[in-house]
Amino acid sequence: MYPSRIQNLINEFSRFPTIGPKTAERFIFYLLKKSPQDLERLSEMIKNLKTISFCPQCGNFAESNRCTICVDKRRDQTTICVVAEPQDLMAIEKTNDYRGLYHILGGVINAPQGLGPEQLQINQLLARIKKNNVREIILALNPDLEGETTLLYLINLLKSNPTFSWIKISRLARGLPMGSDLEYADEITLSNAIKRREII
Amino acid sequence: MYPSRIQNLINEFSRFPTIGPKTAERFIFYLLKKSPQDLERLSEMIKNLKTISFCPQCGNFAESNRCTICVDKRRDQTTICVVAEPQDLMAIEKTNDYRGLYHILGGVINAPQGLGPEQLQINQLLARIKKNNVREIILALNPDLEGETTLLYLINLLKSNPTFSWIKISRLARGLPMGSDLEYADEITLSNAIKRREII
Repeated sequence: MYPSRIQNLINEFSRFPTIGPKTAERFIFYLLKKSPQDLERLSEMIKNLKTISFCPQCGNFAESNRCTICVDKRRDQTTICVVAEPQDLMAIEKTNDYRGLYHILGGVINAPQGLGPEQLQINQLLARIKKNNVREIILALNPDLEGETTLLYLINLLKSNPTFSWIKISRLARGLPMGSDLEYADEITLSNAIKRREII
Repeated sequence: MYPSRIQNLINEFSRFPTIGPKTAERFIFYLLKKSPQDLERLSEMIKNLKTISFCPQCGNFAESNRCTICVDKRRDQTTICVVAEPQDLMAIEKTNDYRGLYHILGGVINAPQGLGPEQLQINQLLARIKKNNVREIILALNPDLEGETTLLYLINLLKSNPTFSWIKISRLARGLPMGSDLEYADEITLSNAIKRREII
C-alpha cells in the first residue's frame, strides 16, 4: 500500500527494540515533516556510527585510543567493575558513587542464543587483573538468569585460580528497590531483602 | 558521558514520537551491533525520504505523478473520503470496504498550534468537487476536539454554498468499538451508542 521506499523503512524501524509497525509508521510521518537538511544530518549521524571506536582496555566507547575513564589517573586503578554492556557502565557512572575502572564483557552467557564465555571479554579481564595491581572486582551484572549464570561462571573462574586468591570479589546488593511496595515485590526480591537485611 | 556523536544521535531519537531517552539509548546499542553495510543502507533510506513525492490530486504518497488510487479507474470517482493524514487513508484502505477516492487535508484545525483552515488543502478539495461529478463527501476525521472542529468547519462551508447543495455529506459512525466493555466506555461514546442505536 505504501510506496516501497516508505514500506522498507517502516520494516527497518519495526526491528528497532520496543518498536512495532504502528510506531514505525509514526516515525515515518515524523521524518516526512523534517527538512531535507535535517534528514541529511540524521542520515549522516547514523552512517557515522560505524566509525565509533572502543577502548582497547575496558571496551567502553572511546573518541580516540583509551576511553576517558581509563585515562583518568584520579580514578582508583585497583578496582574493576565488571559489566555486561556500555549502557551499564553509563548507569553506574550516573550515580557518582564509583571511582574505579570498568571492564565490559560485551554481553552475558546465554546458551539458547549460542553465547558462551568464549564470546565475552573474559580472557582480557584476567590479563588485566594479572598485569595490574587489582584489589577488588565488583561483578555488576543484571540479577536475572543470564546475569547470574555469568556471575557464577566468573566467581568460579577467579576462585579456582590461586593467582587471584588475594582479590576481593563482590557483587551488587540485592533487595527492595527504592519506591517499591512490599505487597507487590516478587518472592525472590522479598526473600533476598529478608535474608540480606541490614542490621541497624 | 557518551561520546558526542552518540549523545547527539540519542538526542535526535529522543525527539521521535513516543521515544524517551532510555529507548533512544537502546536504539543506539541496537544500531551499534549492525554491520557498516546495514548502517549505510538505513542511512540512505532516511536520506531518500526527502525525495518522496505526493499526488497532486489527493495528497497521498505517489511514486510518480498521480497516486495509485487516483489513477485506478475502477474506483468510484464520484465519492471522496476526506482524511487528515496519509496514515488515515492507509487505515481505511486496509478495511477493503471503501472503493472511492480520497482527499488528504494535511492536518486538522488546531488553533493553539496556529493551524487554521488556510493551512489545510481545503480550497483544493472545493476545486476538485466543482470540477468533477462528485456525489458524496465522507468526512473521516478523528472523533476528537480538533477533528470535530474541522468537520464542523467543512460541513458549514459545504452547506452554505449553493454550488454544493446536491452533494451528500456523511461522517464516520460513532458508537462502541469492537471488543469494548460497556462498563468502561466513556460517557460520550456510550451516549452516542444510545442516541445512534441501530434499529434491528
